[in-house]
Amino acid sequence: MKETSALGSALFAVAMLGIIVSLTALASEHVDQEAAPIFVKEIPPGYRDWKVVAVSRLTAGNGAQLRAMLGNDIAIKAYREGKLPFPDGAIIAALHWNEVSSEDNNKVLAEGFPGAGIKSFVPGSGVNMQFMVKDSKKYAATGGWGFGDFTNGKPGDEKLMKTCFACHQPAKDRDFVFTHYVP
Amino acid sequence: MKETSALGSALFAVAMLGIIVSLTALASEHVDQEAAPIFVKEIPPGYRDWKVVAVSRLTAGNGAQLRAMLGNDIAIKAYREGKLPFPDGAIIAALHWNEVSSEDNNKVLAEGFPGAGIKSFVPGSGVNMQFMVKDSKKYAATGGWGFGDFTNGKPGDEKLMKTCFACHQPAKDRDFVFTHYVP
Repeated sequence: MKETSALGSALFAVAMLGIIVSLTALASEHVDQEAAPIFVKEIPPGYRDWKVVAVSRLTAGNGAQLRAMLGNDIAIKAYREGKLPFPDGAIIAALHWNEVSSEDNNKVLAEGFPGAGIKSFVPGSGVNMQFMVKDSKKYAATGGWGFGDFTNGKPGDEKLMKTCFACHQPAKDRDFVFTHYVP
Repeated sequence: MKETSALGSALFAVAMLGIIVSLTALASEHVDQEAAPIFVKEIPPGYRDWKVVAVSRLTAGNGAQLRAMLGNDIAIKAYREGKLPFPDGAIIAALHWNEVSSEDNNKVLAEGFPGAGIKSFVPGSGVNMQFMVKDSKKYAATGGWGFGDFTNGKPGDEKLMKTCFACHQPAKDRDFVFTHYVP
């Protein structure tokens, strides 16, 4: 019975090991799914020198925003090569300004192109700046992207920040990035 | 009478010299004013990598354009330091796209911000690209700026190009540059 007992112990040990490994894996998966998302709390340095991904405009009621989306070198390279997902280190910035009418430009346009009714709109005050920072480990809970939102240099609160990843879900097949690169 | 004559000759010589100098100056000024303006016929290389000066929007009738103004390093440095006139070597690019509605973005915005009526507009097809190239000698006839306009990569004709400098006159106190740098 001694050998049987030894075999039994060995099997028991292997079984236990298996159970422990499985439980660890489950626990780990559970942790990943439940991990509190980490947000970007500091404005990435140098963003104002980055290259243009695209420009855009947003309207709501009577208000409008002019927007510039910029990418650091890693992001721009991935965009231009059409590589998805974006590699770690990629950062995309979205700068949002209130759109205002330019009376100076309108005067010139009225004189230069009389009767054409051309109107010019330019950036007014800044609204906010948003960033997506790719780090597949650090930001695993939110698709590998850390989201940041800054108004007057101050990061958005948890309530606001928790909406970012959920809202970006429809762009899942583009690695959660809405903005297309404009040649 | 000899001395008087000598003085007379000297005065005559001085007077003649003055007239010659004046005539030369007048002739030179005349040449400057009448010099055929030189236009930029080749797209400056690397412009798509330049930094953002500003973004803007132009409307006429039902159409609209989204625009990005970029500057090479010399131009951006001058903008940021508030230096006028722009130094030789500065180049400013203006990329113009037709503004189109983004149905993809609108769908996401309607779901993410129900009832807010937010609409998104993005760049569609390219309209044209314009450049201002600073070279105070080469482009002396047009304020030191060479003007370029490219549609589908082809430079604009003389008739179009002759309107550039005239139209930029109202911005003379900003070295003929309309676009303000947006922080």
